Amino acid sequence: MAKPSQLSVLLVSLVILFRGCLAANQQQWQQPNDCQINNLEALEPNNRVECEAGVVETWDPGHEQFQCAGVAVVRHTIRQKGLLLPQFSNSPQLVYILQGSHGDPFPGYPETYQSPQQGGFGESAGRSQQDSHQKIRRFRQGDIFALPAGVAHWCYNEGSTPVVAVVLLDVANNDNQLDRNPRKFHLAGNPHQEFQQQRQQERFGGHQQCNNVFCGFDTRILAEAFNVDERLVRRLRSEKDYRGAIVTVRGQLQVARPPRTQSQREYEEDSSEYERSRGRYGGDNGVEETMCTMKLRENIGDPSKADIYTQGAGHITTLNSLNLPVLRWIQLSAERGLLHRNAMMVPHWNLSAHSIMYAISGSCHVQVVDSYGRSVYDGEVRRGQIMVVPQNFAVVKRAGGAEFEWISFKTNDNAMISPLSGRTSVMRGKGRRK
Amino acid sequence: MAKPSQLSVLLVSLVILFRGCLAANQQQWQQPNDCQINNLEALEPNNRVECEAGVVETWDPGHEQFQCAGVAVVRHTIRQKGLLLPQFSNSPQLVYILQGSHGDPFPGYPETYQSPQQGGFGESAGRSQQDSHQKIRRFRQGDIFALPAGVAHWCYNEGSTPVVAVVLLDVANNDNQLDRNPRKFHLAGNPHQEFQQQRQQERFGGHQQCNNVFCGFDTRILAEAFNVDERLVRRLRSEKDYRGAIVTVRGQLQVARPPRTQSQREYEEDSSEYERSRGRYGGDNGVEETMCTMKLRENIGDPSKADIYTQGAGHITTLNSLNLPVLRWIQLSAERGLLHRNAMMVPHWNLSAHSIMYAISGSCHVQVVDSYGRSVYDGEVRRGQIMVVPQNFAVVKRAGGAEFEWISFKTNDNAMISPLSGRTSVMRGKGRRK
Amino acid sequence: MAKPSQLSVLLVSLVILFRGCLAANQQQWQQPNDCQINNLEALEPNNRVECEAGVVETWDPGHEQFQCAGVAVVRHTIRQKGLLLPQFSNSPQLVYILQGSHGDPFPGYPETYQSPQQGGFGESAGRSQQDSHQKIRRFRQGDIFALPAGVAHWCYNEGSTPVVAVVLLDVANNDNQLDRNPRKFHLAGNPHQEFQQQRQQERFGGHQQCNNVFCGFDTRILAEAFNVDERLVRRLRSEKDYRGAIVTVRGQLQVARPPRTQSQREYEEDSSEYERSRGRYGGDNGVEETMCTMKLRENIGDPSKADIYTQGAGHITTLNSLNLPVLRWIQLSAERGLLHRNAMMVPHWNLSAHSIMYAISGSCHVQVVDSYGRSVYDGEVRRGQIMVVPQNFAVVKRAGGAEFEWISFKTNDNAMISPLSGRTSVMRGKGRRK
Repeated sequence: MAKPSQLSVLLVSLVILFRGCLAANQQQWQQPNDCQINNLEALEPNNRVECEAGVVETWDPGHEQFQCAGVAVVRHTIRQKGLLLPQFSNSPQLVYILQGSHGDPFPGYPETYQSPQQGGFGESAGRSQQDSHQKIRRFRQGDIFALPAGVAHWCYNEGSTPVVAVVLLDVANNDNQLDRNPRKFHLAGNPHQEFQQQRQQERFGGHQQCNNVFCGFDTRILAEAFNVDERLVRRLRSEKDYRGAIVTVRGQLQVARPPRTQSQREYEEDSSEYERSRGRYGGDNGVEETMCTMKLRENIGDPSKADIYTQGAGHITTLNSLNLPVLRWIQLSAERGLLHRNAMMVPHWNLSAHSIMYAISGSCHVQVVDSYGRSVYDGEVRRGQIMVVPQNFAVVKRAGGAEFEWISFKTNDNAMISPLSGRTSVMRGKGRRK
Repeated sequence: MAKPSQLSVLLVSLVILFRGCLAANQQQWQQPNDCQINNLEALEPNNRVECEAGVVETWDPGHEQFQCAGVAVVRHTIRQKGLLLPQFSNSPQLVYILQGSHGDPFPGYPETYQSPQQGGFGESAGRSQQDSHQKIRRFRQGDIFALPAGVAHWCYNEGSTPVVAVVLLDVANNDNQLDRNPRKFHLAGNPHQEFQQQRQQERFGGHQQCNNVFCGFDTRILAEAFNVDERLVRRLRSEKDYRGAIVTVRGQLQVARPPRTQSQREYEEDSSEYERSRGRYGGDNGVEETMCTMKLRENIGDPSKADIYTQGAGHITTLNSLNLPVLRWIQLSAERGLLHRNAMMVPHWNLSAHSIMYAISGSCHVQVVDSYGRSVYDGEVRRGQIMVVPQNFAVVKRAGGAEFEWISFKTNDNAMISPLSGRTSVMRGKGRRK
Repeated sequence: MAKPSQLSVLLVSLVILFRGCLAANQQQWQQPNDCQINNLEALEPNNRVECEAGVVETWDPGHEQFQCAGVAVVRHTIRQKGLLLPQFSNSPQLVYILQGSHGDPFPGYPETYQSPQQGGFGESAGRSQQDSHQKIRRFRQGDIFALPAGVAHWCYNEGSTPVVAVVLLDVANNDNQLDRNPRKFHLAGNPHQEFQQQRQQERFGGHQQCNNVFCGFDTRILAEAFNVDERLVRRLRSEKDYRGAIVTVRGQLQVARPPRTQSQREYEEDSSEYERSRGRYGGDNGVEETMCTMKLRENIGDPSKADIYTQGAGHITTLNSLNLPVLRWIQLSAERGLLHRNAMMVPHWNLSAHSIMYAISGSCHVQVVDSYGRSVYDGEVRRGQIMVVPQNFAVVKRAGGAEFEWISFKTNDNAMISPLSGRTSVMRGKGRRK
């Protein structure tokens, strides 16, 4: 048996250890970016939630690569007639549409901001409900949406093919004053906390009975606030709705909200009726004015818009605050690239941004080097995988046997790269001239 | 009302904190905002320091609500002829005047910045003392003052009723490069370190003998720097002055400073003579120029200025960087609201700011909901209490049996809210139409 | 005696405990500025690396003063014909030229940014190598260079006297998204990791075999990317080059890069040929455009440019974003001062910046006071020493028996100071008028 003195040492060290661990845990999560990275990885989503009309896949935001970059990533697959329920996050987001029905005029990725209404500019209180200014923003493959922190949005797929979108949440952004956890606030339904799944792999149906924002309010208070009856409020709370974050819309989608008076309009018994966030009370508010009339979407999938085009090698399109001014506000930018087979992007580094690369199609060989001249990655990145290239780390990419396409999100509104060497182009075709 | 003869000063003392405890606490203290909040509370000040001519009350800045929001809060009560001694802080501040003598032209909440002087623009060194540019800013109830970090200020009450002000210190602000502790640097007197009281409730007289900034300097160095004799320097150091941060001015307040030469003017034996910070040496400095000529005050107590007015419900006035441009610099804004009895402010959330609500009068029932749809507060907030509503958390307010008035400080220069549902107004009167 | 199993538990826990302590230490490193400073020190560099053609000296960035200010400091001495090899850092930098050959037109502190090239604006890919836009910026004593994060630069001394420069790295800057460690990324040679020396005092030659950024890439990949043969690539990697960060250039410096095709030009066998970083691929990028045409240098050593001149006392020159707009971007400014013997700079504080003072010549007596009115420094600062004066701390300086000159770097693009008292000047000559 251990002598008392030894035991006490053990206990003391365990106690301190326990405190140390606590501290260490909190530390990871709460720290400013900590990029003590020895090895990068090409990562696939490690959590998948099947919903009624689609799939939500997330990458573990606790992984050191994402902790370093201060971001979280989700991929949404929304099937035909699927509605991604209204939600908002504590961090600004960039949404890239990987797949959507090009010619279809119906799909929309609306962002629910509205211009100031009654009160805001002293406008008449009698304004009709029809006068709602919600912007429905249609989209197609290759579009990027910029969503400021706290802005509610939803996405409905009226097309005939699934919509697939990869979403970057910049949790380290200044506009997120909560903490480094990526959080989703749900305004409808009963979705899973998508980023919590890594710790609590539960089966469909095993999740909370009610987790949208309405659930925490008193039914009577809500009934009074919205001037509806309590039965309807209980519908808003979506208790025991196990369809998840993406539900099927039956019939036509109606962008609805609690009616003005109960008598005015009967609240339809349709799951598509989800109230949305509304503008705000006004105030002579230039920023919001800007935001309301502000373009939140840009297409960077179109090769004709490429900033760089190297024959035989590929092309790159950059989206920054000069193309899309809202990016200045949310301090993010993006780069969409294509390399022909065996073509290269020459060694370069990102000046003052992390780069979060998602492989859209094909595969490429990537090498990344840190400040000590050590290789921290030397391997493939394949379709559907994500790799973080930390600020200042040098990186080279070479496409595999097929075209390689990627989207890189960057944590700066005007991210710049600098090649290691003075080539006339950042890309090189496969034809190696000797 | 304080009688001049009656030195009824209750001093609670300040002493250096036990270092170990400080160290242990500090970690928490230093973290980026951590809003893992399960329960909010309506908080009253838990520290009170009686001074010669007023009271300083503080809320514990270590409370998780304030840690989450990255702020600290003080309430000053300044009796007639009381002078809040000159001081500055490591964080920007918003000061709301809860009470002051409306019609009285005398009270002032000056901010001691001055336009550049000798040297700055090559102006003559022979400039007279009378040429001082100190701005004396008068105020009345409902005024808000914006004070950038490091800017010295004092407040004198020449009115006939006490001045009461609630002060927000935004310690998480970028302009505070020291640490997350709210610090006060005193330029006169011997005030308590007001935010340290929570840990060391000590008896009268136990506090430091000398804790204004002059105390740390060598007497001879100060005498030489100010070209005065050492006896006067000892007066500047205010050793063994136990009147606290708010002292009674006998006679007329003279905004004094160490005289230019000893022979020029005898330094009067009056407690009102406190040297103040001065401008700065010049430099063609646009920012300061802006600050000097910049409006630092705005009234938001006047109902006629309301941005939103809903008959039967109440009104809301917003102060942001569009009304008061200095707020863009210090990244804060405010909202002043009034709800008639039983009226509601409908459920809504703050997009990218925390909201720190101070109840001015009346009481209201508040419910707050987090990102999991859980209720984190369901209760009353009464006059004089503070509640933090974290960014993105949903909140509903309902006035009690009387009018409810509040001031909310927001940690963003253009804080916006978004209602949970598409009502035409964010407020609802008590008359529930069925 | 403890049983083996218990012992191993003990050992394991101690090991983990040790890691926990390490973590705690690292935490210090990662924290937001923590200025719980009881005593300041006048610091000399505590690490010195002798290179072939110069010396690199660093101050321990882990010292609490530098941790508080969030900065690191280096001093470079570059002998005649010496080349500080191309490098970039994760943080913005300010470089002050302490010594250089005034009249000599040859020395240069170039910054290697270039305006957008092929691809960027759809310009012809056939552009010749001669069309390179690298800016060679010449300098002289008293110059300050502003280098944004991630911008590569090198320095060559073609003068006849050593160039001595003191360099501030603002690791706490928003543009550094990696971590609080000052990092250098080397684009050539095999320099020591200068800030790591404090922990691993190794002899010259004992360092890594290869630590520039090229080392981590595969030789064949680099050969293909640059279209050169592998023998040349191995030269780029500078393996087993033990000359350090400052090397001697034999013959004429040629700002070279890997030739376009091997046949076009033979790569000269000269150590001066170091490839440099290049611009970036273009994009209609206003920021970079600005940066390319932007002035990165200003001289503040010239007394005729002084903002403040007090007869018999001295003068002060301020450099901020109004003189040098790039400072707005990198959020730094500087103050260059001179005090005649026994003259004083009166007590004052920095409003919202830390001040990092480097003593250029002479010595002065400095007193610094914290928020509790306690003296945290009372002593001399001599030539070549550095002292950090934390934000808001009050400071007084008095020159010794000779002229005292200093350069202060400030962590704000428009740092302001405020004197404690209303003197007409911030400086006082030695003649004490009584």
